[in-house]
Amino acid sequence: MGDRTYAILGSGALGGFYGARLQKAGLNVHFLLRSDYEYAKQHGLVVESKDGNFELPHIQAYRDVHEMPRCDVVAVALKTTQNHLLPQLLRPVLKDDSVVLVMQNGLGVEDRVAGIVGPERVMGCLCFLCSYKPGPGHIQHLDYGTIELGEHSPDGTPRGITERMRSIGTDFERAAIPVRLGEDLLASRWKKLVWNIPFNGLSVVLNARTDQIMADTHLRALAEALMREVAADATACGHELPAGSIEAMLSYSAKMKPYETSMILDYDRHQPMEIEAIFGEPLRAAQRAGASSPRLEMLCHLLPYLDRLNVARATSP
Amino acid sequence: MGDRTYAILGSGALGGFYGARLQKAGLNVHFLLRSDYEYAKQHGLVVESKDGNFELPHIQAYRDVHEMPRCDVVAVALKTTQNHLLPQLLRPVLKDDSVVLVMQNGLGVEDRVAGIVGPERVMGCLCFLCSYKPGPGHIQHLDYGTIELGEHSPDGTPRGITERMRSIGTDFERAAIPVRLGEDLLASRWKKLVWNIPFNGLSVVLNARTDQIMADTHLRALAEALMREVAADATACGHELPAGSIEAMLSYSAKMKPYETSMILDYDRHQPMEIEAIFGEPLRAAQRAGASSPRLEMLCHLLPYLDRLNVARATSP
Repeated sequence: MGDRTYAILGSGALGGFYGARLQKAGLNVHFLLRSDYEYAKQHGLVVESKDGNFELPHIQAYRDVHEMPRCDVVAVALKTTQNHLLPQLLRPVLKDDSVVLVMQNGLGVEDRVAGIVGPERVMGCLCFLCSYKPGPGHIQHLDYGTIELGEHSPDGTPRGITERMRSIGTDFERAAIPVRLGEDLLASRWKKLVWNIPFNGLSVVLNARTDQIMADTHLRALAEALMREVAADATACGHELPAGSIEAMLSYSAKMKPYETSMILDYDRHQPMEIEAIFGEPLRAAQRAGASSPRLEMLCHLLPYLDRLNVARATSP
Repeated sequence: MGDRTYAILGSGALGGFYGARLQKAGLNVHFLLRSDYEYAKQHGLVVESKDGNFELPHIQAYRDVHEMPRCDVVAVALKTTQNHLLPQLLRPVLKDDSVVLVMQNGLGVEDRVAGIVGPERVMGCLCFLCSYKPGPGHIQHLDYGTIELGEHSPDGTPRGITERMRSIGTDFERAAIPVRLGEDLLASRWKKLVWNIPFNGLSVVLNARTDQIMADTHLRALAEALMREVAADATACGHELPAGSIEAMLSYSAKMKPYETSMILDYDRHQPMEIEAIFGEPLRAAQRAGASSPRLEMLCHLLPYLDRLNVARATSP
């Protein structure tokens, strides 16, 4: 323990947060950065967190994967909109027995990585985290933080809990990150989508926070209709949610503090939204399984238009 | 001919336009106005139109129905959001054999009027008009203008073409308004909704003009999916559209000049949108007929939230 080395590919509000916590816990962490490289190389990282603020005055920062050592665990923490970079990024940091930990949102993200590194190396990692980056090398951790690990399965059958899941889980627990081990990664991915699809989608279409959605009779009904539709898609794909899941999520969402979803945070910064991973891929999976999912399909039509105009506004003078 | 008297209840961009054209053609027209009363009483109406500008320096203007004479044709040209006023407005201007011409958008509007004046007096009038009011007593007619008349039928069965339809149609034709006579009013109402639901709804949700909707692959697909859904609702309600209607509307919409829907014009002026007549009532009719219409339902959930915030912005300091 403590010997496992970590590469964080994409050290933003999510990768930077988990990487910083692992380093603070004594693990050997290597951060790949892009826009923040110069700053973090000089000044390290600052994490302001509801769990307590801390600074790492020095981190092992890189802007080129070829300068990084090969690591035992390679965490993919890029936004899925950057996934076209993965073929160049992954191979230089892999050992023969590296685990590639896919810390991304949505569906199909492990398949994408498996296509590059082979399925046996891939482990999924759902991140229940609310954080953002107020400035270079500066991470604001607002809430949550639990991760859920699950083995990737090329044919979708549950792979259960493995020894390497326990080992990696132990590293995160050492960093005081709550860890769940999941037997069926795709079931976990779908369950998270049942929340993410309505609340991320409606937050952007309506420019609304979760509390505004839950407080409006119509929007709450729509969020629930979307939840039930995505749950039916999950069932069609062979990953039925436990009974009572939707009721529990609704009651939880009504009690949450006002929360801006990751997608509206991207939108407000004129960054591309993760539409394909969170909406497009689940819709295609549902359709392949014979489900029609018209409300999800409607979001798949509305969001790309808003995204295109929004990203154009960022680059226009 | 020329002896029929007209009362225009709601002399805005629509009622004011048709009333002015009828008066210009020599008919005896009485205008009920609200905010424009003082101005129009003094200065009459100005119509700027693609068919030619004209002025009516004097009109018979009223702000109280009790001062109006009883008229042969009583045109209901209020926005449906003002329909709570109808019981007070209608009765004072009715003769025993008056026709009440319902020039409103959406579904169920004739039933509402029939509940007040009795079904035998009610005639539907679909208005294919693009106009707005740039200032008091000033109407800008941008495009179109055709009306379609149809007899109201309490049980929904087609009532065919009647003599009084022909007579009223003749008045409008005298005013150079293109007139169609429809045998099945509800079929016409549904056909108009097949266009109005997607383009009015999406224009507000996305702040988009019709040309922007048609130019975007996703939005065009969504508009078509909504059209097909509403057409299926119409079929479920016993009013199947003629084959090829949707293809014709799509091809027509792609060739239209950039067009702001009546709903986004209301929205931009922070006026209440006609959500119930254009979306709510068709959804309920579809559901009563056993159709589910999830995309229309989604618009019925999205629009009231946007409407509420938008109207509140108009009245907040």
